Amino acid sequence: MARNFMQLLQERWDQHKFLCVGLDSDYEKIPTHLRTINTGLTMVNFNRAIIEHTHEQVCAYKINAAFYEQQGLMGLSAMHQTFEVIQKINPSIPIIWDAKRADIGNTNKGYADAAFNFLQADAITVHPYLGQEALTPLLDKYPNKGIIVLCRTSNPGAAEFQDLMVNEQPLYMHVAHNVATRWNTHGNCGLVVGATYPQELAKVRAAVGNLPILIPGIGAQGGDLTASVQAGRNSKNQGIIINVSRDVIFTSSEKDFAFAAAHRANELDSAIRASLAIDIGV
Amino acid sequence: MARNFMQLLQERWDQHKFLCVGLDSDYEKIPTHLRTINTGLTMVNFNRAIIEHTHEQVCAYKINAAFYEQQGLMGLSAMHQTFEVIQKINPSIPIIWDAKRADIGNTNKGYADAAFNFLQADAITVHPYLGQEALTPLLDKYPNKGIIVLCRTSNPGAAEFQDLMVNEQPLYMHVAHNVATRWNTHGNCGLVVGATYPQELAKVRAAVGNLPILIPGIGAQGGDLTASVQAGRNSKNQGIIINVSRDVIFTSSEKDFAFAAAHRANELDSAIRASLAIDIGV
Repeated sequence: MARNFMQLLQERWDQHKFLCVGLDSDYEKIPTHLRTINTGLTMVNFNRAIIEHTHEQVCAYKINAAFYEQQGLMGLSAMHQTFEVIQKINPSIPIIWDAKRADIGNTNKGYADAAFNFLQADAITVHPYLGQEALTPLLDKYPNKGIIVLCRTSNPGAAEFQDLMVNEQPLYMHVAHNVATRWNTHGNCGLVVGATYPQELAKVRAAVGNLPILIPGIGAQGGDLTASVQAGRNSKNQGIIINVSRDVIFTSSEKDFAFAAAHRANELDSAIRASLAIDIGV
Repeated sequence: MARNFMQLLQERWDQHKFLCVGLDSDYEKIPTHLRTINTGLTMVNFNRAIIEHTHEQVCAYKINAAFYEQQGLMGLSAMHQTFEVIQKINPSIPIIWDAKRADIGNTNKGYADAAFNFLQADAITVHPYLGQEALTPLLDKYPNKGIIVLCRTSNPGAAEFQDLMVNEQPLYMHVAHNVATRWNTHGNCGLVVGATYPQELAKVRAAVGNLPILIPGIGAQGGDLTASVQAGRNSKNQGIIINVSRDVIFTSSEKDFAFAAAHRANELDSAIRASLAIDIGV
C-alpha cells in the first residue's frame, strides 16, 4: 500500500512521539573519525548511526536539502541513500524533505518528481509566495504526501515581510488562513512556524484547527521547548512536529556521537511529553 | 579573474542583447532522435546543440533546477555539465541558476556552495519570504554573484499573497522597495517580475531605479513582448533580462530543432531591439 504522510504521522503521535530529528548533516561537522575518501558515504554512515540510535524516539525525520546539495553529486547520492536507510531501518517513520521549493505550476512537476518519485519523500516543505495555484502539482496530485508551507519562520529577520500588516493581520496569518481553509482540500497540508516565536505560534494554532505544524528552532536557534509545545499543540494534545537538528545530531563529535544523539533525543522526547502532561512513565 | 555577474550582463546589454534562453530541458520534450540510454547525456547533448546555435543572441542563460532534479542523479550531473558546456562555448555569457531557494541563514550557506562552488553559477534566484537577514550568506558573501529575488511572479495565481495591500501598496512593491534600497548594498541584486503583468512591471521599474529585472513569461505563458520590454527597461534603455524557455528550445522536435531554436531566438532578439527602438540593422 502507498505510504500516507498524515497516517504515518498520526500513528507516531498516537504513540506519543512528537520529536523530529533534522538530519542537517553538514559534512564539516561530522566526527572526523568517520571521514572516508567518499564525502557521500561519510554522510550516509553518519546518518545511519544517528537513525539506528534515534528512530524509536521520533515522529519523523527531516532532511534539509541544502546540506546535501552543498556536496554536489555525492551529496545528492547521500541524500537519496539516507531516505532508503530510514525506510529500511524503520518503515513506519515519515520523512520530510525540507527543500523549501516553489516555482510556477509547470515547473513544480519537476520538484514533485524529485521529491516523491526519486527521493521517495513522504512530505515536502514549500514557500507560499507564488500561491496555491502554482503549487497545484503538489497539493492536488499527491494527496498522500504532506505539503508543509512556510508560515512564520524561525530566523531573526522573519518579520521583514511575514509581519507586514494586511487588513489588521500580519501576512503570516493570511498564509495560515489560506492554507488551512483553501489549500487543504485533500487534508495533506501543514505549516512551518518557528519555536523562536511562541506567541505567533499560539496565534497560528488558534486559527488553523488541528492542522499539523512543523516547529523548528529548538536547540541551536534558542527556541523554548515547553513554550513551543504548549503554544503549538492542537485540541487533541497532538498536531506538532518538534524539529531539533544540530542539538541532537552534533551533541558529541567523539566515537560516542550516536549514543550521545540518542541520549539527547531521549531527553527531548521526555521534555515534550512532560510539556504535554503525558505521563512519561507510560 | 573571478566572474562578475553584473559586469558580464552589462557587457551583453552594451551589445544590445537582452534575451535570456531558459534551458527548461524537460526530458519528455527532448526530440526523440536524441534519446540515449543515459538520460543525463541526452539532456546535455540537447542543451549543447541549443547553446551552440543561440549563444550569440543571448544576454544570459537560465537553468531551472526543477527539470534536472526531476531526473535524479543523472539530472544533477546533466545540470552540472550544462554549466560547463556554456562556459566552454561562450565564457562571456552569465548563467542564472533558477533554483528559487531560500532557507534560514545557517542553511543558505549550503545553497550558496551548491550554486557558486559546485555548479559555478553566476546568479541565483531566491524567494523573499524569509527576509534579508536569512539571505545574508548569499547577499553579503557573494558580491560578484547575482541574487535575483522573486517579486511579482508570472503565474496566474501570483496575486494570492503578492497583491495583498500593506500600507496602500501591494506586498510585491514592498519586496521591490526593500531589495532595491536595503538588500542591494553590494550592487548584486535583481528582481523577477513576470511578463504576464506589464502594469505591475512598470510599477516595479518606477520604484527600483536601474536594478536588473529578470522577466519570464513570454511565449508559452502568454506574456506580451513589446509591452514587457517597454514596461521593464530602465533609464539607460537596458536593465532587462527577457527570458524565453519552451518557446525557443522546443520550437521543433525534428532534427532541425537547434536551427529552429536559433531562428526563434533571432526573431525574439529582433523584436526586443525593435521594442527598444534600437536599429536592428546595427
